[in-house]
Amino acid sequence: MATAADGLQGLAKRARVEDAVAWIDAHVAPLAAEDVLLAHAAGRVLFQDVLAELDLPPFDRAAVDGIAVRADETVGASAYNPLLFRLAPYAGGPGDLPAGSAVRLNAGAPLPRGADAVVPLGHVEPHEGGECAVIEPVVAGSEVERAGSQGARGSTLVRSGRRLGPGDIGLLASAGRARVGVVRRPRVRCLSSSAAFETGTSLPAGAACDAIGPMLRTLIERDGGVLAEQHDAGSKPETLRTAMALPGADILLLVGRNDDAAATLAEAGTLAIDGVALRPGAATGIGRTTAGVPVLLLPDTPAACLWACEFLAGRAIRRLGGRSPQFPFAPRTMTVSRKIVSEIGMTEVVPVRCVNGGGAEPLPSFAAAGLRAITEADGFVVVPEGSEGYQRGTMVTVYLYDERARAQS
Amino acid sequence: MATAADGLQGLAKRARVEDAVAWIDAHVAPLAAEDVLLAHAAGRVLFQDVLAELDLPPFDRAAVDGIAVRADETVGASAYNPLLFRLAPYAGGPGDLPAGSAVRLNAGAPLPRGADAVVPLGHVEPHEGGECAVIEPVVAGSEVERAGSQGARGSTLVRSGRRLGPGDIGLLASAGRARVGVVRRPRVRCLSSSAAFETGTSLPAGAACDAIGPMLRTLIERDGGVLAEQHDAGSKPETLRTAMALPGADILLLVGRNDDAAATLAEAGTLAIDGVALRPGAATGIGRTTAGVPVLLLPDTPAACLWACEFLAGRAIRRLGGRSPQFPFAPRTMTVSRKIVSEIGMTEVVPVRCVNGGGAEPLPSFAAAGLRAITEADGFVVVPEGSEGYQRGTMVTVYLYDERARAQS
Repeated sequence: MATAADGLQGLAKRARVEDAVAWIDAHVAPLAAEDVLLAHAAGRVLFQDVLAELDLPPFDRAAVDGIAVRADETVGASAYNPLLFRLAPYAGGPGDLPAGSAVRLNAGAPLPRGADAVVPLGHVEPHEGGECAVIEPVVAGSEVERAGSQGARGSTLVRSGRRLGPGDIGLLASAGRARVGVVRRPRVRCLSSSAAFETGTSLPAGAACDAIGPMLRTLIERDGGVLAEQHDAGSKPETLRTAMALPGADILLLVGRNDDAAATLAEAGTLAIDGVALRPGAATGIGRTTAGVPVLLLPDTPAACLWACEFLAGRAIRRLGGRSPQFPFAPRTMTVSRKIVSEIGMTEVVPVRCVNGGGAEPLPSFAAAGLRAITEADGFVVVPEGSEGYQRGTMVTVYLYDERARAQS
Repeated sequence: MATAADGLQGLAKRARVEDAVAWIDAHVAPLAAEDVLLAHAAGRVLFQDVLAELDLPPFDRAAVDGIAVRADETVGASAYNPLLFRLAPYAGGPGDLPAGSAVRLNAGAPLPRGADAVVPLGHVEPHEGGECAVIEPVVAGSEVERAGSQGARGSTLVRSGRRLGPGDIGLLASAGRARVGVVRRPRVRCLSSSAAFETGTSLPAGAACDAIGPMLRTLIERDGGVLAEQHDAGSKPETLRTAMALPGADILLLVGRNDDAAATLAEAGTLAIDGVALRPGAATGIGRTTAGVPVLLLPDTPAACLWACEFLAGRAIRRLGGRSPQFPFAPRTMTVSRKIVSEIGMTEVVPVRCVNGGGAEPLPSFAAAGLRAITEADGFVVVPEGSEGYQRGTMVTVYLYDERARAQS
């Protein structure tokens, strides 16, 4: 039977952040592929190179709205010597262009046979009687996208590991792909050994642990994971052991870090790291089940849980999904507008606000302000373990939360 | 009846990109609020300030796992003079702490009445007989999050205009919010006056226009919009006029830019801008319906359509949804590793690749490579209208597509 003295083992021997990161990088690899509709592939990571099955474009086509002509028939054209072309009807596909004629087409349309250049609309003057005047000569190939110029059949269109954006989707669509193989989304099982996921009815309103469920879901989805399950597993070792043995998850997050959970993980799998020199987030454990599924033991105060995710759990999820393991924030070099003090031996996260003139102003710490520190911040600075902090004016890397602070366009 | 000579009006009088941007900024404002569950609020833009309805935290709570004590009872503790405390049971909520006693609690738990400090587990030694030893004195308030310290009742927790991230969601959850008011997602109606959304059965395989439907959907969703409708409206003016008059959309994108569409918009609403000095993307028109709904006429070659969206249509969608109107990419200052040539009078987008040593290497243009230019690129440089380009070694702003290229963590 548990006594009041149970759970007094401390976390004095903390791993360095870089060792915790190295463990994750060594033990967590991207998942296998799944086939998805191109319409659902935005933001996903391409599993293997996609090769062009056709020349791209598959035919010579207009690069601009204009008229398709035979370039040699425009020689000598000028404002003083406009050359007249008869406008032939355009059927919407190839067909012969009669000599002395032009066809009006929009950008992207296939050139009629015989045409080898497009005169942009701005260089064409409409004329009476179904004719138009060209006032500048063009050379063969002008404003024409040649068949195969954007990718010969068999060449690589998009490389594996690429996170698919609008342009990639457009390119794959125009190459005729309806489906594409992407890295499977990691399924994340979240368990609590405390009341972290209770909705508050049985807890005093505003209890810290209320915050963690919705926050974790947001973090998991941002990093490309799917929250497969989120529930309170209770704090009994046998319940935790059962949960660890259940199939169906690619990673397990166990919130409500306590020594029972660490002991259970050590018994039922491997406890590789027990405590990390990270502030906030020191009470983090890392290991895996006997089946090799990564397990993260996360602290149950919101700010500590957040940073344990940003540095470690999120990194594992990003790696599983084939994404870059790095922070999903833009780093920018800035100068510190006030001194930052940090304890030697701990990697410390310091929230900052961007101030006029390009400086980064440190804000009250997470210890003092909790999550509130984030909502006031434009980003954060990471003070490494070996540093006591930064003097005013030091150049540091600031990770910015969103484009508001970093936009310059 | 349309003749072959119709549609020869050129786009000679193009608006400058900055004027097109200024028109959008002047005529497109954020939509009204809608109330959503906090669980669905990630990534959304907060409509108005959220005030704390409670003190945050609502009670004094432990900042770390440890034992709660009366600080004045730890005076004199050291490794040579360990002070013994009797471990009292902890009921999970407030209650009186007997003199000479301590309770074990996890971070986030409310302090029992009488306790005013928490000794971290690392500074506590378990002892026999239900006691533990404290080997360092603590001061009152040590490792305690004071009630109200992260936000007094009535203070602003998260400001309007903030795009809600994991930390914001966590903070709002811990403040007891189950729902939150966010800017409504813009509903986007996409119409085609060409065959841009056909799936290819009636077109040669690989036709350029195949690419635009899936690409637009990806762009719209990335910028926070909802694709309300996407279909071929045909090219008849009356069909377009009807589509423009239909309610239910916050913005209209009309792909397959041609003079019929521009003329219809001029008649059935306002055509404010007809052609933009942007490459790719010159054949872009901007206006609005009589009901004030913004209308973008977009070119129907994929690369031109993409850039018309990034600069203009996407900006309008981002503004409607309350987001930053800027490019959703991280700008970074880099040096050009090869000369970039650009035409005076056109704002030109040049794809670049990051090379070792921090340089940006220009890649073949969109005119030459189409969307292929993007899949090879790490980002792009915008050469403004008044510039002929950049010499090798010039410092420029590169907009980076994703964190792969920008991560340094």
